Amino acid sequence: MPLTDMSLAQLRAFSPTVREPADFDDFWRETLAEARTAADLAGEKARATRTPADTPITELIVEDLTFPGFNAEPVKAWAIRPKGREGEKLPVVVEFNGYNGGRGIVGERALWALAGYAYVFMDTRGQGSGWGTGGDTSDPHGSNAAVSGWMTRGILDPKQHFYRRVFTDAARLIDEVRTWDFIDPTRIAVTGGSQGGGIAIAAAGLSPDVWALMPDVAFLCAWEHGTDVAVSDPYQELARYLAVHREHTETVWNTAAYFDGVNFAKRITVPALFSVALMDDVVPPSTTFAGFNALASADKAIEVYAYNGHEGGQTYQWLKQAEFLAARR
Amino acid sequence: MPLTDMSLAQLRAFSPTVREPADFDDFWRETLAEARTAADLAGEKARATRTPADTPITELIVEDLTFPGFNAEPVKAWAIRPKGREGEKLPVVVEFNGYNGGRGIVGERALWALAGYAYVFMDTRGQGSGWGTGGDTSDPHGSNAAVSGWMTRGILDPKQHFYRRVFTDAARLIDEVRTWDFIDPTRIAVTGGSQGGGIAIAAAGLSPDVWALMPDVAFLCAWEHGTDVAVSDPYQELARYLAVHREHTETVWNTAAYFDGVNFAKRITVPALFSVALMDDVVPPSTTFAGFNALASADKAIEVYAYNGHEGGQTYQWLKQAEFLAARR
Amino acid sequence: MPLTDMSLAQLRAFSPTVREPADFDDFWRETLAEARTAADLAGEKARATRTPADTPITELIVEDLTFPGFNAEPVKAWAIRPKGREGEKLPVVVEFNGYNGGRGIVGERALWALAGYAYVFMDTRGQGSGWGTGGDTSDPHGSNAAVSGWMTRGILDPKQHFYRRVFTDAARLIDEVRTWDFIDPTRIAVTGGSQGGGIAIAAAGLSPDVWALMPDVAFLCAWEHGTDVAVSDPYQELARYLAVHREHTETVWNTAAYFDGVNFAKRITVPALFSVALMDDVVPPSTTFAGFNALASADKAIEVYAYNGHEGGQTYQWLKQAEFLAARR
Amino acid sequence: MPLTDMSLAQLRAFSPTVREPADFDDFWRETLAEARTAADLAGEKARATRTPADTPITELIVEDLTFPGFNAEPVKAWAIRPKGREGEKLPVVVEFNGYNGGRGIVGERALWALAGYAYVFMDTRGQGSGWGTGGDTSDPHGSNAAVSGWMTRGILDPKQHFYRRVFTDAARLIDEVRTWDFIDPTRIAVTGGSQGGGIAIAAAGLSPDVWALMPDVAFLCAWEHGTDVAVSDPYQELARYLAVHREHTETVWNTAAYFDGVNFAKRITVPALFSVALMDDVVPPSTTFAGFNALASADKAIEVYAYNGHEGGQTYQWLKQAEFLAARR
Amino acid sequence: MPLTDMSLAQLRAFSPTVREPADFDDFWRETLAEARTAADLAGEKARATRTPADTPITELIVEDLTFPGFNAEPVKAWAIRPKGREGEKLPVVVEFNGYNGGRGIVGERALWALAGYAYVFMDTRGQGSGWGTGGDTSDPHGSNAAVSGWMTRGILDPKQHFYRRVFTDAARLIDEVRTWDFIDPTRIAVTGGSQGGGIAIAAAGLSPDVWALMPDVAFLCAWEHGTDVAVSDPYQELARYLAVHREHTETVWNTAAYFDGVNFAKRITVPALFSVALMDDVVPPSTTFAGFNALASADKAIEVYAYNGHEGGQTYQWLKQAEFLAARR
Amino acid sequence: MPLTDMSLAQLRAFSPTVREPADFDDFWRETLAEARTAADLAGEKARATRTPADTPITELIVEDLTFPGFNAEPVKAWAIRPKGREGEKLPVVVEFNGYNGGRGIVGERALWALAGYAYVFMDTRGQGSGWGTGGDTSDPHGSNAAVSGWMTRGILDPKQHFYRRVFTDAARLIDEVRTWDFIDPTRIAVTGGSQGGGIAIAAAGLSPDVWALMPDVAFLCAWEHGTDVAVSDPYQELARYLAVHREHTETVWNTAAYFDGVNFAKRITVPALFSVALMDDVVPPSTTFAGFNALASADKAIEVYAYNGHEGGQTYQWLKQAEFLAARR
Repeated sequence: MPLTDMSLAQLRAFSPTVREPADFDDFWRETLAEARTAADLAGEKARATRTPADTPITELIVEDLTFPGFNAEPVKAWAIRPKGREGEKLPVVVEFNGYNGGRGIVGERALWALAGYAYVFMDTRGQGSGWGTGGDTSDPHGSNAAVSGWMTRGILDPKQHFYRRVFTDAARLIDEVRTWDFIDPTRIAVTGGSQGGGIAIAAAGLSPDVWALMPDVAFLCAWEHGTDVAVSDPYQELARYLAVHREHTETVWNTAAYFDGVNFAKRITVPALFSVALMDDVVPPSTTFAGFNALASADKAIEVYAYNGHEGGQTYQWLKQAEFLAARR
Repeated sequence: MPLTDMSLAQLRAFSPTVREPADFDDFWRETLAEARTAADLAGEKARATRTPADTPITELIVEDLTFPGFNAEPVKAWAIRPKGREGEKLPVVVEFNGYNGGRGIVGERALWALAGYAYVFMDTRGQGSGWGTGGDTSDPHGSNAAVSGWMTRGILDPKQHFYRRVFTDAARLIDEVRTWDFIDPTRIAVTGGSQGGGIAIAAAGLSPDVWALMPDVAFLCAWEHGTDVAVSDPYQELARYLAVHREHTETVWNTAAYFDGVNFAKRITVPALFSVALMDDVVPPSTTFAGFNALASADKAIEVYAYNGHEGGQTYQWLKQAEFLAARR
Repeated sequence: MPLTDMSLAQLRAFSPTVREPADFDDFWRETLAEARTAADLAGEKARATRTPADTPITELIVEDLTFPGFNAEPVKAWAIRPKGREGEKLPVVVEFNGYNGGRGIVGERALWALAGYAYVFMDTRGQGSGWGTGGDTSDPHGSNAAVSGWMTRGILDPKQHFYRRVFTDAARLIDEVRTWDFIDPTRIAVTGGSQGGGIAIAAAGLSPDVWALMPDVAFLCAWEHGTDVAVSDPYQELARYLAVHREHTETVWNTAAYFDGVNFAKRITVPALFSVALMDDVVPPSTTFAGFNALASADKAIEVYAYNGHEGGQTYQWLKQAEFLAARR
Repeated sequence: MPLTDMSLAQLRAFSPTVREPADFDDFWRETLAEARTAADLAGEKARATRTPADTPITELIVEDLTFPGFNAEPVKAWAIRPKGREGEKLPVVVEFNGYNGGRGIVGERALWALAGYAYVFMDTRGQGSGWGTGGDTSDPHGSNAAVSGWMTRGILDPKQHFYRRVFTDAARLIDEVRTWDFIDPTRIAVTGGSQGGGIAIAAAGLSPDVWALMPDVAFLCAWEHGTDVAVSDPYQELARYLAVHREHTETVWNTAAYFDGVNFAKRITVPALFSVALMDDVVPPSTTFAGFNALASADKAIEVYAYNGHEGGQTYQWLKQAEFLAARR
Repeated sequence: MPLTDMSLAQLRAFSPTVREPADFDDFWRETLAEARTAADLAGEKARATRTPADTPITELIVEDLTFPGFNAEPVKAWAIRPKGREGEKLPVVVEFNGYNGGRGIVGERALWALAGYAYVFMDTRGQGSGWGTGGDTSDPHGSNAAVSGWMTRGILDPKQHFYRRVFTDAARLIDEVRTWDFIDPTRIAVTGGSQGGGIAIAAAGLSPDVWALMPDVAFLCAWEHGTDVAVSDPYQELARYLAVHREHTETVWNTAAYFDGVNFAKRITVPALFSVALMDDVVPPSTTFAGFNALASADKAIEVYAYNGHEGGQTYQWLKQAEFLAARR
Repeated sequence: MPLTDMSLAQLRAFSPTVREPADFDDFWRETLAEARTAADLAGEKARATRTPADTPITELIVEDLTFPGFNAEPVKAWAIRPKGREGEKLPVVVEFNGYNGGRGIVGERALWALAGYAYVFMDTRGQGSGWGTGGDTSDPHGSNAAVSGWMTRGILDPKQHFYRRVFTDAARLIDEVRTWDFIDPTRIAVTGGSQGGGIAIAAAGLSPDVWALMPDVAFLCAWEHGTDVAVSDPYQELARYLAVHREHTETVWNTAAYFDGVNFAKRITVPALFSVALMDDVVPPSTTFAGFNALASADKAIEVYAYNGHEGGQTYQWLKQAEFLAARR
């Protein structure tokens, strides 16, 4: 794979126009308020639960978390932390997953816990059947006629869009984590790769007091531009939808604007460490840079992997992230 | 593309084991009863409507139909018929669509009406964004974690499965058509290609008094076998799901059995004209023959296209169908 | 598929240099004169015939047309029109087909007749075996060593080139249609998709008094540029030929210039409605714009499908065309 | 590439049914008689010519041959032989080319001449633009609507089929070579790879007194079976044609029977050395074995390349051939 | 991906002929003896070292191991174990890696340590640049002309073959692990996926007293059959080599026989848990079953993943393995 | 294939920055000195030998050459020349091969000898198993963990890099050829296609008194730029290596600089005839132009094949080369 996008110099300066709805902040304020109210109304029934996971793992504390997400619907996650730290307030890393993956079998992702952090890995509702060892969270919401995939489910109305539910789940997970007694609520970092990076950006936009934002090869920034230049799914789901529903172009981009990482990035001021891969053929580097360049944070950096595809920095980047958090601890 | 499956002689004798749920008939009896009751309860609100379509077409009567399908939810269709036949009772052909297609812009399919039949083309709920000019029917039902696509939505419970809703829509459309005053209710034929052929088989199974069944390159027969041998989607959606959810294999095939065309075919006794293509790489010919061979009809035939892929006989087959109906008129 | 060519703004301004032979007009004047003379000389033997088609279609008048094309050779077409308009002078739409398709089984394309127009669909000589339901017209002319395909047959001499014969067939069909008594000879529109669009442009160039020109995703404009940028056939047939016959480059482009849509477009002044698809990977949008931008018509428009591939606007575009003609009727 | 066909043991026993026209021998007797008569009638105008080739080659005698083929039409070839053998009668190897290749630039194939043989390499009419350095022979015959490619040109009538002309060219070339004074007319061997192997088989069938037949990965044997099992062109050209012209299946196979290598092989009794490659994905090994197994020769052998694709034995096989001829010299 | 090989019933009975060299046992006895002697002779210089790894991981003991492999050359591995078990004798799992992967960054594979085992992950010499985060072990041995890849390096002489060095490294690693004081030398299990599974089989063959053998989708069994049926690399490296070096077929298979997992399996009697995936397109299931079926162990089982490709059971299989070892602890 | 790189005008001006090591000349002076010394030390044992080749070829003198290359290791070549020129001093063309090809079976390349030149074709050590009829030269040097392929073998240290050995072989072959008594040592031309072109450039850089340099579609110029833009191997081997070994980027490009054709080209002043293909998808035309544009020769030309892929000019270019040498003879 050669370079898939502009030169690095052009990427560093790239700042495409992204529509911003006038009621962007209201939309999200109301959305989160509704979700919190729904959980309050549901009461005990929707209360979060943490139970010991069924696993051969003995060297970490491993819990199966169910928490109330969008509309107080149950969302699953794994919560893992070091043993023997009773009484300590641990920093925590919350991670979101890539497109179509599930939380899987517990233990597959344990590096943050091995490094002494509490770690939470959220299931993405409806997804989790595309690769890996599976997801456990339903998405009990139907949709308009849509392309197979998730990008266009509810695309005709921001209130119905799939990512409205997912981003709300993410924000609600942070609400939940903040209440745990073994956690330092001032040190909640968010991370994730690809779609997980996009969700992390949204989570940081919706939970402005997180400690740090660390998305990798972040998807979901500059949707309209991404659809023009991406050679593969998921951005191409939008192109396929519009290839059929030729009359809905404006509607689609107006809906997308409520979920565009660029609009969240403009509102984010916390320390941020991004990464990007210049031979990525799934998430065009220019879309990730569109998000990074829009970020309002003073303390921000982006790690460039010049010869990688969508796998990006992998554990190399985790080492960078571990260093980044350690330096800000 | 060479032959994609067994030799023709082997295909003619192929009869794989397909699970049949003990409550198959009860399941469907209750499902249809529920849907009819739902429409009754909804009353006026769910009543079917036929309004003149907005189209430049002047030489046929073209109507936009909305009728109550599963759970009395509104489903769209086009209804087209010749002009100048007032007082006549027309035979009618009801067609269902291929995977991920919509009813499109009216007039794209007009051959049956041009040949003097009333013609109805049903939208497939949720689909209609994959190719062509689009579908207009929502599927307001969420799902378990599922593969992108429709085969695995609700796959863990027959009551939740996507095709329970679609097959019910199809049966309810026949309920509706039967009430029209310009129609001869003893001459309702069902047809469709690929997924549309699978729906037609289900419709004939659920509406035992239809006039004729004419599916082309029918999908949705012998699901378990199809998943072992098909090289591409949609059957491979099931393989991808099971590649992730390794623990759900039995559950998946038990659910699938309620929707398998082979089980409907065993119950069908009306005249039937199938078609199949021996170089089809989407619907393995052995799955279509599994359905055809299981058919209880005395008057049945299958047109074999030895050198075609999934496009099958195209208008050649329509000529055969027109002859088939004319001979039984 | 992402964008396959320049940005829309660049496309609107794109005007590549296209060779124009000094004797372009003479070449075509003589070519048409020869063909008309050949038919005159052949007399009765080459006379056009219209006979009722063998078809189940009852709601339209459907005729099988044979007319004398290039060298008075018999070329097939379908002629379809509404019933019950005796004595009326109908406007007519003449359509040409895409690369390697045939006129097929009658009735597959009936929308214009359904909307009250007379409609004629011409077979492309030699082609009609690549997809669909077939063509019926031979091309009784051999060729130099050529790439499999049609672009390079006769490429070493404009007089021998395949499209000299096809474009002449098209012009001769308009000669023929103009003589029909149920036709309004001042309202003959030409249309077609892809290669059919290219033929339509040539037909309008050779029959300057047509009513309107409506090509979709038009192929055969700016051949030399197209060969540099197209990723697939048929333009790549030229590249393959020149990859072998490295010494014939000048000869090839000199021949091509007699058939380049840009040279016809410069001579066309009738109302024109084009369409183009920005994710087209067969006909690069820049080649279609090269033709459109060269058009001498005062009344011209181009419909842009931003997210479509080579399928372009499909029936959406037909609705636009129907509106376009209705407004100029 | 794994094995592409049956196991070697099955291949050695494979003997598919191939239609044989009752008038096969008459058809060819008349065809050759017509061609010879045409040349006689044309007289001087169609006489074969050998002129020194324009080439930097100085160490061999290199001539540009034009000879009268089918219908006395001019066909090109290269004729090459060692220097300094005045007065000697040389054995000669006549070679035919693979699908869509031309005779190219002289000198590219010189091994036989380097080993002391006279060598003639025939251009294939109409072809020679697909790869390499080109062909120089026109095919001045039109065709029915056909698939791009050569397999289906004239497929509706054996008299019109492309290979009737090509096989006649081959037989006529042997007529011509036999007259040369520096040639031993009892030692004319024929060879070729792929299509060239198929032509060589036909040439040996039509010129029963050749010295030896040495086809490699021979194409054009068992056409009907080949079309069922081949994954790629040219056999798939037949499948594509029949996928469109569904009504012509019988006609096609009846025409093909006149050109099927199996029918020629049954009539051949000269020494023969074949080769075949078991991972060939262009010419299925079972089709080549169908030809080899049908051969009436007592002195026959087949070299099996177990791990090669369509390139077969390459120069390894040439060494085998050189040995084979030397042993029979 | 459909099934890529025989039916499950056929697989369970599949037992291809695999050549077994008369001196197989001598070859390996001498090979290991040489390697042990080389280390003895090298003395201090080649002594194994374990140093704390440079990593943010704090919750496990993580060591960087260098040990003397083939010819006493330094080979790298990671050694990881639980904290706080001083004085305990831990069971240990030794894992080998898939084709072209390296040991990577430490911590990427930690599940066994998290479950209370000592865990060692060996670098594969020369490899480790194809995917992931890299390998650190050179292979200081040249080779004959070979296909890019490792299968054919040294293929003309068993003593020179790449896997002679790798399998020796594996056996020598077990020699080394057995000496550690925190290890229970009677409970050394070997595992690995794909190539790693093949190495594990060899290791169990060469170290007959290991506790258990647990290879997943094991590669390197039944090389000759695998090359006939595998659609992709690495087996196809052998086909490519033999497609060029047509004269070396016997030599190649004679060399391969020294490294074929089937020959090791016949000699293995320890408890074994295999896994296999029926839609695997890299390692044909029949090759893995060839190994499993040949196994002399009384206590053996194979987990079948019916819908997976080469990823196999992933963490699902790890859960099975953890259970398998726990039951035998 | 459309154009794969910049426009021709841009290519003619393209001059990327290429690192040049300060000790470039010293590195190579020492490397060659070492190789010559090694041969001297080895004495008789490493002496070059020329023996008659075992071949059916009788019309040329064909010899099997073994000469001492890097480290006095034996390297194979074919040496071919006209018969009957005793006492003459022949000009000679030395050719190097493309990536992964071997010298093959003698006679496959004989054009230069047929035109009266002595001709030598060098085997590339270690390669020769990828295509064709094979290579016979080992590369007895191991390597660091490397990508399968040759680009990254020894990439961490210029002294260990694969091309240090190959380029030395090439220079040593010229040393050898220069000593032959039937050769005119002032007329040694070097040529080769793809990798062979890259080796020819290096050979001309290392043997400054060659007569002429004639590389085709030359690979190995502007490695760093090539890796950014090439869509396929071998340049992509470097990208894959760096995708894994993310920390070695600087090291890799520093090593590559010692082997970059641009650095050799700057030092070359002899007559040069290059060729390039604008639709080449293996060697980006911009990399070849980077080499050509850097050339210090006053007498230089580049033949542009506008519509060819990596096959380039083939025998057309050989005619140009024959003319080029003849004009300078």
